[in-house]
Amino acid sequence: MGISGSYGDDSSNSRLVRLGLNECEVAGAEVVFWSLTEKPLPLVGSDGSFEDETVKEFQALAKSSDAFLLSSPEYHGSFSGVMKNQLDWIYGDFVSGKVSAVMSTLGGVSNSNTLNHLRLVMRQLHMHCIPQQLAVANVKEAFDDSGILVDEKLQERLTKLCIQLLQVTTSLRP
Amino acid sequence: MGISGSYGDDSSNSRLVRLGLNECEVAGAEVVFWSLTEKPLPLVGSDGSFEDETVKEFQALAKSSDAFLLSSPEYHGSFSGVMKNQLDWIYGDFVSGKVSAVMSTLGGVSNSNTLNHLRLVMRQLHMHCIPQQLAVANVKEAFDDSGILVDEKLQERLTKLCIQLLQVTTSLRP
Amino acid sequence: MGISGSYGDDSSNSRLVRLGLNECEVAGAEVVFWSLTEKPLPLVGSDGSFEDETVKEFQALAKSSDAFLLSSPEYHGSFSGVMKNQLDWIYGDFVSGKVSAVMSTLGGVSNSNTLNHLRLVMRQLHMHCIPQQLAVANVKEAFDDSGILVDEKLQERLTKLCIQLLQVTTSLRP
Amino acid sequence: MGISGSYGDDSSNSRLVRLGLNECEVAGAEVVFWSLTEKPLPLVGSDGSFEDETVKEFQALAKSSDAFLLSSPEYHGSFSGVMKNQLDWIYGDFVSGKVSAVMSTLGGVSNSNTLNHLRLVMRQLHMHCIPQQLAVANVKEAFDDSGILVDEKLQERLTKLCIQLLQVTTSLRP
Repeated sequence: MGISGSYGDDSSNSRLVRLGLNECEVAGAEVVFWSLTEKPLPLVGSDGSFEDETVKEFQALAKSSDAFLLSSPEYHGSFSGVMKNQLDWIYGDFVSGKVSAVMSTLGGVSNSNTLNHLRLVMRQLHMHCIPQQLAVANVKEAFDDSGILVDEKLQERLTKLCIQLLQVTTSLRP
Repeated sequence: MGISGSYGDDSSNSRLVRLGLNECEVAGAEVVFWSLTEKPLPLVGSDGSFEDETVKEFQALAKSSDAFLLSSPEYHGSFSGVMKNQLDWIYGDFVSGKVSAVMSTLGGVSNSNTLNHLRLVMRQLHMHCIPQQLAVANVKEAFDDSGILVDEKLQERLTKLCIQLLQVTTSLRP
Repeated sequence: MGISGSYGDDSSNSRLVRLGLNECEVAGAEVVFWSLTEKPLPLVGSDGSFEDETVKEFQALAKSSDAFLLSSPEYHGSFSGVMKNQLDWIYGDFVSGKVSAVMSTLGGVSNSNTLNHLRLVMRQLHMHCIPQQLAVANVKEAFDDSGILVDEKLQERLTKLCIQLLQVTTSLRP
Repeated sequence: MGISGSYGDDSSNSRLVRLGLNECEVAGAEVVFWSLTEKPLPLVGSDGSFEDETVKEFQALAKSSDAFLLSSPEYHGSFSGVMKNQLDWIYGDFVSGKVSAVMSTLGGVSNSNTLNHLRLVMRQLHMHCIPQQLAVANVKEAFDDSGILVDEKLQERLTKLCIQLLQVTTSLRP
């Protein structure tokens, strides 16, 4: 299951998640991307949010998924509120013992604040979070017209990260 | 300016912020609490969010404030999406050089994950964040009927934190 | 391989590591504890440290180990210098892809700062760090005369953590 | 008081601290650099460490200082054991309410893990830590023969950081 920390299926951040999902699919996984554009989730606690049908659909999908590929834009040194609000709708018993990988996109120079914070959230949900991670800096120049990462090393690291995610998921499956 | 990471002006977390603002007022400060119940903010990037009038009002208030008192519930080892989404609407040039204090409320045992993450966000916004902080554990039993913190030591620490916030704000004013 | 962030094989922190190693041994693992009392390591960069024979022995042991059980006392909101200095002698190619579990002991109330920082160091060394972790608060009262954890829940969590460490190590073995 | 997280007064990291101290001196401060080469500190808890005379001298200097300028090399995603061991010898009542600034040097690309961890340690010691910080990436190419930072922007940021450190120290002085 792919989760993006930004609206817009064509935002750079969503593109990174979908590029990763593509790699996972090529490697044999069944993948699904949650599109906030098509199915926006309400803020936790906002009027009517606890009875929201889209939330229930999101939660059912999280429950049925074996692994999670996350990417968030870094805003002010951490993940976006949009990302965290989605994670707030996921409870420990949906995902405990499952496997995740974290990525982030940044407007400027590389940093791992968002990755660190995501990693701790994964831990708190009792998920395994694989050591591989990816931070895409200067994200506006990171993708070419065909939607591939310009920097070949980054593209390679993305492929490795996805393969590792699948391997660990398969190895740890009960 | 007081910002709460949860909906509901009577939620424990909002109550903590308002209790703190009260202390600040007693100590001579002019205070304002942003009520998400009355004035909900849209998720950054959601449909129409960049033209939202409530967002502009929120931003104007942040610009005109000298100091910030924040509290977020801890969800999954970090601040809530609701809290971060508010902070995502604040830009560095609104608050650079200003002063903040951070607090959190937890359902279970005490921890400082949320405080640590909030502190880094404050840093990234180029704000001073005072050393004093407050984590209110087992928050459901933390307040008595009159809305005061049951644990006198916590109440004392809250008072000290607010006084410190005002002192540092006054000392660092250009 | 067990690594303690404090001197003294009978310090509470070292005891916690050895208690964990004992659990691992009962569960079928071959274990080894690095005793700083018997084999102190020099500070990285201190006079003659790069030719130190004890360092080489420590490094050889790390290379030959499949999994790591770490515990550090929390000093000033992070692991001890003693703990980090040992980790500084370990290089990524010794441990990349291996598995670790992190624990900490605190003089006062519980907190996960040390665990968070250790977890990031494990990540940077490209190790898997299992979700289970253990923070032993008020460490002076934590052990009884026979050297067992007084709090049964903590003792249970230690057992689970060790079993999990072995399971993940076995599952991820190439 | 300047503290470096590496041995060798001519190491890049020590040089950064001394460059900063120089800026502070030009701006009117009285400065002192703790040289580990001349006065090495024992690991906390090692044989005889609690009676060590050099430790006492170090502690007396910390007590008498108003502000602290720290820099550590980043090893494995955090400060060095050498840095943390020095900080472990400093107790809260020596430095509570005083002011600090944090810097780091990295062999490769920039990152703020070390700065984040140092910042939390400063917080735990109840020190103010100014928002400005500095990470010097690719440190082997960072200094020219005269010992100045090659990147003018970095040099400017160092100057600003030092001026800010002095301003905040003066403003917050009781």
